[in-house]
Amino acid sequence: MASMRASPFEDYLAQIHADLRGVDSGELATYIPELARAAPDGFAISFATIDGQVYSVGDCATEFSIQSVSKPFAYAGALTQLGQAAVVEKVGVEPTGEAFNSIVLDQKNNRPFNPMVNSGAIAIASMAPGDNHEERIDRMRRLFSDFAGRELSIDQAVYRSEAETGHRNRAIAYLMLNTGMITRDPEEVLDLYFQQCALNVTTEDLALMGATLANNGVNPRTGKQLIGPEDVRDVLTLMMSCGMYDYAGEWSFDVGLPAKSGVSGGVVAVLPGQLAIAIWSPKLDEIGNSVRGVAACSRISRDFGLHLFMNAATVEDVVRRQARADQQPSLRIRNPRERDILAAEGHRIALVEIQGALYFASAERMIRTLDTLAEEVDCLILDFRRLNSLDAAATRFFNDFLARAAASGLEIAFAEVDGGGQGKREALAALAEANGVRQFRTVDSALEVYEEMILEKVREPFDHTRFSLDAIELFKGLDRTQLKQVEALVSLRQFEAGDTVLSRGDTGRVFYVVARGSVSVILPGDGSSAPTRVGCIGPGQFFGEMAVLEEGKRSADVVADERVVCYGLSAEDLSTLGTFDPRILSTLLGNMAREFATRMRRGNDLISSLK
Amino acid sequence: MASMRASPFEDYLAQIHADLRGVDSGELATYIPELARAAPDGFAISFATIDGQVYSVGDCATEFSIQSVSKPFAYAGALTQLGQAAVVEKVGVEPTGEAFNSIVLDQKNNRPFNPMVNSGAIAIASMAPGDNHEERIDRMRRLFSDFAGRELSIDQAVYRSEAETGHRNRAIAYLMLNTGMITRDPEEVLDLYFQQCALNVTTEDLALMGATLANNGVNPRTGKQLIGPEDVRDVLTLMMSCGMYDYAGEWSFDVGLPAKSGVSGGVVAVLPGQLAIAIWSPKLDEIGNSVRGVAACSRISRDFGLHLFMNAATVEDVVRRQARADQQPSLRIRNPRERDILAAEGHRIALVEIQGALYFASAERMIRTLDTLAEEVDCLILDFRRLNSLDAAATRFFNDFLARAAASGLEIAFAEVDGGGQGKREALAALAEANGVRQFRTVDSALEVYEEMILEKVREPFDHTRFSLDAIELFKGLDRTQLKQVEALVSLRQFEAGDTVLSRGDTGRVFYVVARGSVSVILPGDGSSAPTRVGCIGPGQFFGEMAVLEEGKRSADVVADERVVCYGLSAEDLSTLGTFDPRILSTLLGNMAREFATRMRRGNDLISSLK
Repeated sequence: MASMRASPFEDYLAQIHADLRGVDSGELATYIPELARAAPDGFAISFATIDGQVYSVGDCATEFSIQSVSKPFAYAGALTQLGQAAVVEKVGVEPTGEAFNSIVLDQKNNRPFNPMVNSGAIAIASMAPGDNHEERIDRMRRLFSDFAGRELSIDQAVYRSEAETGHRNRAIAYLMLNTGMITRDPEEVLDLYFQQCALNVTTEDLALMGATLANNGVNPRTGKQLIGPEDVRDVLTLMMSCGMYDYAGEWSFDVGLPAKSGVSGGVVAVLPGQLAIAIWSPKLDEIGNSVRGVAACSRISRDFGLHLFMNAATVEDVVRRQARADQQPSLRIRNPRERDILAAEGHRIALVEIQGALYFASAERMIRTLDTLAEEVDCLILDFRRLNSLDAAATRFFNDFLARAAASGLEIAFAEVDGGGQGKREALAALAEANGVRQFRTVDSALEVYEEMILEKVREPFDHTRFSLDAIELFKGLDRTQLKQVEALVSLRQFEAGDTVLSRGDTGRVFYVVARGSVSVILPGDGSSAPTRVGCIGPGQFFGEMAVLEEGKRSADVVADERVVCYGLSAEDLSTLGTFDPRILSTLLGNMAREFATRMRRGNDLISSLK
Repeated sequence: MASMRASPFEDYLAQIHADLRGVDSGELATYIPELARAAPDGFAISFATIDGQVYSVGDCATEFSIQSVSKPFAYAGALTQLGQAAVVEKVGVEPTGEAFNSIVLDQKNNRPFNPMVNSGAIAIASMAPGDNHEERIDRMRRLFSDFAGRELSIDQAVYRSEAETGHRNRAIAYLMLNTGMITRDPEEVLDLYFQQCALNVTTEDLALMGATLANNGVNPRTGKQLIGPEDVRDVLTLMMSCGMYDYAGEWSFDVGLPAKSGVSGGVVAVLPGQLAIAIWSPKLDEIGNSVRGVAACSRISRDFGLHLFMNAATVEDVVRRQARADQQPSLRIRNPRERDILAAEGHRIALVEIQGALYFASAERMIRTLDTLAEEVDCLILDFRRLNSLDAAATRFFNDFLARAAASGLEIAFAEVDGGGQGKREALAALAEANGVRQFRTVDSALEVYEEMILEKVREPFDHTRFSLDAIELFKGLDRTQLKQVEALVSLRQFEAGDTVLSRGDTGRVFYVVARGSVSVILPGDGSSAPTRVGCIGPGQFFGEMAVLEEGKRSADVVADERVVCYGLSAEDLSTLGTFDPRILSTLLGNMAREFATRMRRGNDLISSLK
């Protein structure tokens, strides 16, 4: 195919960029002299997805100092390093109508109102862990670099400019020292805070930092878990209520995303679970937010319906598929009597495939489905191959369901618990352990075991002598003389448990009828996949016939499950039989075609049930 | 199966109820004398899912007056009836640190700060549409009844008590009249507001009202769309920032759900897209929130990780499955040469199944996948059977992708657009229309058409004369004399387009070989499903053999696609051939078994690719 032109997402960003380029209102920040040197017309938009894809337009390679956009990330660091209780004791969580650089403090609780105003951010800096000032600066810089996924440096000019002129912040720090809100040397605390604000970033950095919050604390590029989900929760909550200075009410009404802006003209907005948007344009409105930044976020949120409370994705149905063993039996090849029994009784075994994420509401819906099924079946096989995650709430209710199921005598099996993350695997293993649930590697092995439970109850005792030719379906319709002729031709072969009977890729010259024991048909794994058992063949059934009929190669390995006795018939034997008594061959081929027709009918049923 | 005991969700609610029963702090509201008559120990918890399942514990049948919990729903009504612009002009969206019954107004904008404080709610009441007071009251009562899904009545004693003693609200109303914030007769406005506050509800009502917000404005029980998604967005935003009086900061940090409380002790909290929780317990804390209500919400949110910013469900992969036509060909039964061509060239047709919801981030990921595929294939079939929804953002980007695809010459087909909601169907139809995309009812019909495109290019011109016996695979290996013997036995049958050749359920006595034209194998629908075309059989291929070999019933209908000429062979014919020259029968059965082996191998490949 001819290559198509650029992504629609870049096109879209370019469109917004072009539309808003003309917006020229606002003023450069002047309270830090160095900020007034920024290119007033600079303008970049980036967004980053939680799997690390970044789209950008405009001056996305231009570095600017992070300023107040650093506050949520510094807060995140404090929560992770010191714990929520210690942090909340020193810095509150209440929105305030005051300006970002207000000197007003929450006197009642003796702490700044929240960590998104300067007083709160300075208090957070005063808690930075480290043995000395240099170590604290180094840890701070490393934290931010981890969020951005690259080494960030400090803009020395901006830092010095702010250190020399930050009188108001100095006043705030000394006021907090006076009331005991901070206890360290205020000059050191301010120095750390000014260096933090002077970190150089691009919009791509900010987008990835925001995407780390969107991605439950894991940097999408490096895969490093920087902060826990509880810390993400607290940071996003305060970005939502206090991130845009006095504009918070309008912002949450209009844009509806947790966000943070800074006086250098940066804005980052986070759409949890999806992406982050970052904008840089240094001209600010009266409140101190980037004019184009606010306009772009508002436009993007509206265009895409990104508002947190807009069109909530409704709870997904985690039950991907239900089936019963009468429609979808195990791959074990059965004789006609077993088939009849399983066709009649297989409905007592249910197979349920679970997909997606199990959380409170999706678990509630799943358990309602399982409760209904539990009234109808004896065995329930849960296939977890497509389950991505289960959270604490889901685990709790699932555990309760399993305990009730165990008490009521319902047999439950877990299959395919190994895919997906470690958390899912461990949670399912613990649930199985606690409730006596049987675990199987594959759905098929669980199906086979439960089918055997049904067959055990009705099967005539099997004396383990080997099947004679006349008891085998394939030779049905042959008279005594014809059977003797076949008997004279077949070779009797014995295999021990684990022996390879057939190998994939070999030329097929012989097919076998099982007289005793059983064999498994196995597709060998390659580099990326494990071997898969695709079928099981027991007494009276034949295998290896496909390659013989098609004069082709074996399509799978066949391995003896136990000691196995087989009758082997080669292509030459068949041709000899045809010459000798063509009626033998036609009877045999007729039986084979009949068996094929039955297998195909089952295969077609399975295909329709899977589609 | 023996029935299992009650749901884990009721167990859980019972546990919380028991744990919090002992909490006895707080006071009954006294500012409306009638409220002081409530049973101080009353306590109920309900929750309702977005599909209308309700779980309850405690005094869930007890009615209480809704009071301030009515505010978000009255606001919702105003937004729907008057539009956002008209409402926001009269009532702001800014949180305020003031108490719920504060007389402070936003003088700058000449409006109450927000609709969750009394002044704002009274202003909303002043905008109620209706020709006269009675009609306004009736419309208000009907709105709330629609939210609850049952007829609600007004508690006359509470209404009269509030009307007689609501001096502070009267003061607020007259102050607003004075500043022009309201223009109607304040006594009528207050009367409507007091009647609204005196509506009787249970926790089950409140839970369903909240679940209507969680369900994007559609009542989960009645299915009625009461307000639009934009209104839901605005209501939830203000519940989040202003719903819990002065406790908003702590609440959003601790519980993190949009909520509203009232002085009668009711609280409703909404988890968008999932459920709503309602609690009633009349003892209030100093701020005016139900003590047990706050405690229960906090506990439930923590136990289940329901905080809005906790563990965001990450963007789902909407590409459920990818396949190519070489692994998953159409159901049309092909002759060996066609099979070989499609095995070699089928990889140029890709089939992609889309599932779940298409929104900004999931569409971005899907388009990335499709862009990669577009480099490798000529035809792309998109199966939308499992797509639930696509929003405006997804539609926009998808449209862009389709336009680029059309420009680059990529063939795109939409299949199965009919399932799911009307919105999805219409959006896909519009996308297809705008970009010249072909629509097919089933994936199989799309596959077949694209396969034909590949075959057309390489197929020898077909002269439409009928196949003679010696050109048919099934009779391969027969010599001239043997062919003559077969020819003498077979019956030549002709069918017209639409004729039923075989009927499901009939006893199978004859099988057919197609000499000219093609037939479709169709599973008849039942009450709940439409007929499904499961296969297509063309010249040289046979059908109807299964029932003949198994001596059973036809499993499907077979219908002529066009004028069809077939050779028919009955079970008796086969047996005659066997007696006459057994070599004919064995050759024929051998060919049949070989064909079966090939079909089964394809079936097994398809099964593994589907699993």
